[in-house]
Amino acid sequence: MIEINFDPKLGAWAEGEHADKIRNNYFGESRDGKLWLLPEEVMYMIDLQNGVVRRENKTMTFADILAEYARKDPRLMIKYNAYRDWRDRGLIIKRSDKNAKIQKSTRSVKRYPIREMKLPKLDALVHWDPTSALGVLEDEDTGRLLFEDWWLGQCGVYKQDRGEMLKLNFFETVLLSKHFGLKVQDAVSGKRVSADKIMKDVARKREFAKTMYQAYEDWRMKGYIVKTGFKFGTHFRIYFPGASPVKKSNDGKWIHSKHVLHISPKEEKLLVSEWARAVRVAHSVKKTFILGIPKLTKKDLVDYPADFVAFRRKKKGGSWVRETPKDGPRYLLSAVSEEEHIGGVELASLLHNAENLNLSLVLSITDRETAITYYALNKINLRGAKYDYYEIEWMKP
Amino acid sequence: MIEINFDPKLGAWAEGEHADKIRNNYFGESRDGKLWLLPEEVMYMIDLQNGVVRRENKTMTFADILAEYARKDPRLMIKYNAYRDWRDRGLIIKRSDKNAKIQKSTRSVKRYPIREMKLPKLDALVHWDPTSALGVLEDEDTGRLLFEDWWLGQCGVYKQDRGEMLKLNFFETVLLSKHFGLKVQDAVSGKRVSADKIMKDVARKREFAKTMYQAYEDWRMKGYIVKTGFKFGTHFRIYFPGASPVKKSNDGKWIHSKHVLHISPKEEKLLVSEWARAVRVAHSVKKTFILGIPKLTKKDLVDYPADFVAFRRKKKGGSWVRETPKDGPRYLLSAVSEEEHIGGVELASLLHNAENLNLSLVLSITDRETAITYYALNKINLRGAKYDYYEIEWMKP
Repeated sequence: MIEINFDPKLGAWAEGEHADKIRNNYFGESRDGKLWLLPEEVMYMIDLQNGVVRRENKTMTFADILAEYARKDPRLMIKYNAYRDWRDRGLIIKRSDKNAKIQKSTRSVKRYPIREMKLPKLDALVHWDPTSALGVLEDEDTGRLLFEDWWLGQCGVYKQDRGEMLKLNFFETVLLSKHFGLKVQDAVSGKRVSADKIMKDVARKREFAKTMYQAYEDWRMKGYIVKTGFKFGTHFRIYFPGASPVKKSNDGKWIHSKHVLHISPKEEKLLVSEWARAVRVAHSVKKTFILGIPKLTKKDLVDYPADFVAFRRKKKGGSWVRETPKDGPRYLLSAVSEEEHIGGVELASLLHNAENLNLSLVLSITDRETAITYYALNKINLRGAKYDYYEIEWMKP
Repeated sequence: MIEINFDPKLGAWAEGEHADKIRNNYFGESRDGKLWLLPEEVMYMIDLQNGVVRRENKTMTFADILAEYARKDPRLMIKYNAYRDWRDRGLIIKRSDKNAKIQKSTRSVKRYPIREMKLPKLDALVHWDPTSALGVLEDEDTGRLLFEDWWLGQCGVYKQDRGEMLKLNFFETVLLSKHFGLKVQDAVSGKRVSADKIMKDVARKREFAKTMYQAYEDWRMKGYIVKTGFKFGTHFRIYFPGASPVKKSNDGKWIHSKHVLHISPKEEKLLVSEWARAVRVAHSVKKTFILGIPKLTKKDLVDYPADFVAFRRKKKGGSWVRETPKDGPRYLLSAVSEEEHIGGVELASLLHNAENLNLSLVLSITDRETAITYYALNKINLRGAKYDYYEIEWMKP
């Protein structure tokens, strides 16, 4: 049993042998010969460490502590769930503190290769169908070039060598018109249309079309093949430069995409559970999930608090030992619940904070049964890209 | 080569041997000694059947036909993609016609078992934390009863025998308070709160909370165990009556849920790709996806057109042969694109039409590469439920 004292003016603390037992476990902060405990630490003691909290002569329950602190900190219960889960894995987690010194960087940045996209000026006409947002290219030579060399459009039927007509989607039509001189004619009105006009028309009907296009262009112009991610529940799937729909790889198999790309527009407020769903589909098909976020200016950023810094394990003399505040934390951890909304701006602000601390960001998501899922976000270096990109990994600490 | 004639006033038709070749394949409609073709049929002929269309002395391309018809029918290209794909599988598909006689019913309704939920009146108090929407029940006897007999709440840590406190989520707290006398006290204000008040507060912050709760109550009161579907990317996961978090099944394993439940509120307009994403996660973990839709009155329903009726195969003399209009169609088929929105009302109206025709509804979704995914919706019979429920199956025709 760990005895804890509570006074509404002073807070919660442990003394003597009770303090010693938990101090070694990196709970609390020593001051004036006492070990002062934060609300989540007190709750953890009651919930899972046989802690008994005394207020004058009365025993306080978990709900009493919650009632005491939740007024000032309404998100306490959500934070507590994340705290409890991390601690339950035998690892250390502390309140995030802007002034704390981060002793070493564990943040990793992945560099992605680049091959600038080059095409001769196109002398061909696409018939644009505004409702389906598909273009039809009947010039077979241009069609074959675009399809076989750059995997642009869909030639005939997918993975079957039938049909000659190239169908271009909205992103492809705009890219080719804007950068490579493709001519576009509206199939309904019979009029020529510019890349700008197509973009405006599509954006009127489809939310975030411009934001999506910018990400598409970012990757395409760097030589990546960017196709729909529909089958994998994301906006796009991505093949590394050089992938082809007609050449098989050395082992005689079709090349499979290994990355999917999901875009989080600034203006979007996505339910955490919906955001997690997108990551989940990608993992179920063993693809790396990439999150794209428009670059924000300082003015855009908000003060969205990261709740904790979290520590992990290190190898020492052949076995794994947990890291402590002496090692420095590994992650900036933000606790959210499955039913909260998270906006592109909030996420970008959190990522910005994590970068300043030289830490990876981890989102810990509490579901309705208080079980926790962790996702780590690691920055991608795609030189010259207009947006920021992150690999998102499902993580078991 | 199939020769087709086109006249802007009369339409498109084939004659003689050209008509004979495709008439046997159930294209077109015979009238006045000619075989009249619909736009999607003409497009299919050009695209994949070596069809040549003549208008006076000129040859019309696919884009010419599109230009000719898309003004009147802007969704033609989306419909065409569905048509092409079904036809490409060697199967027959025809325009849906309200007056066509459906010769036999292939619609299946699955009956789900029912065990009415019964509980003694609860004499216990829950401390309700409004921000996390979690309740804390410290009375261990009541907690054990709710958790072990009805799998309500989360007792201690998930799948670990640690901790005694029962955490109830929003749905559980409201259900127990509304139907079984549970007392609830706001942990922050210290005041008693009613089920109604909790519902109102949560609904203010969380979209569709009332609609979600209604579905939760539908299944719970019929004896089903309804827990969060977060790990599977849906609103709920469902266990059949009798499932328990403490009893293992005969083979010594924990019982796994086999169904997930997703709710489509009336007011919601969901992007088709987002809707499909939810179905996809369920399939990747081999669970049956159930869609819940609030019952609509006739006034709510809209005239959302189903595009086609579709035929499949039947067994005949030991082999599979395709079914024809003489057999009657199997499905009402609605073609949508990955980037369109589909609302709860539209979906309900389509389902209503399908039921009137005694057919199953199939959604065919065209992605940006014009590849098609099919989902069939089959009605569930859950006696006394306030909403309509459908099993959604990913289908390969």
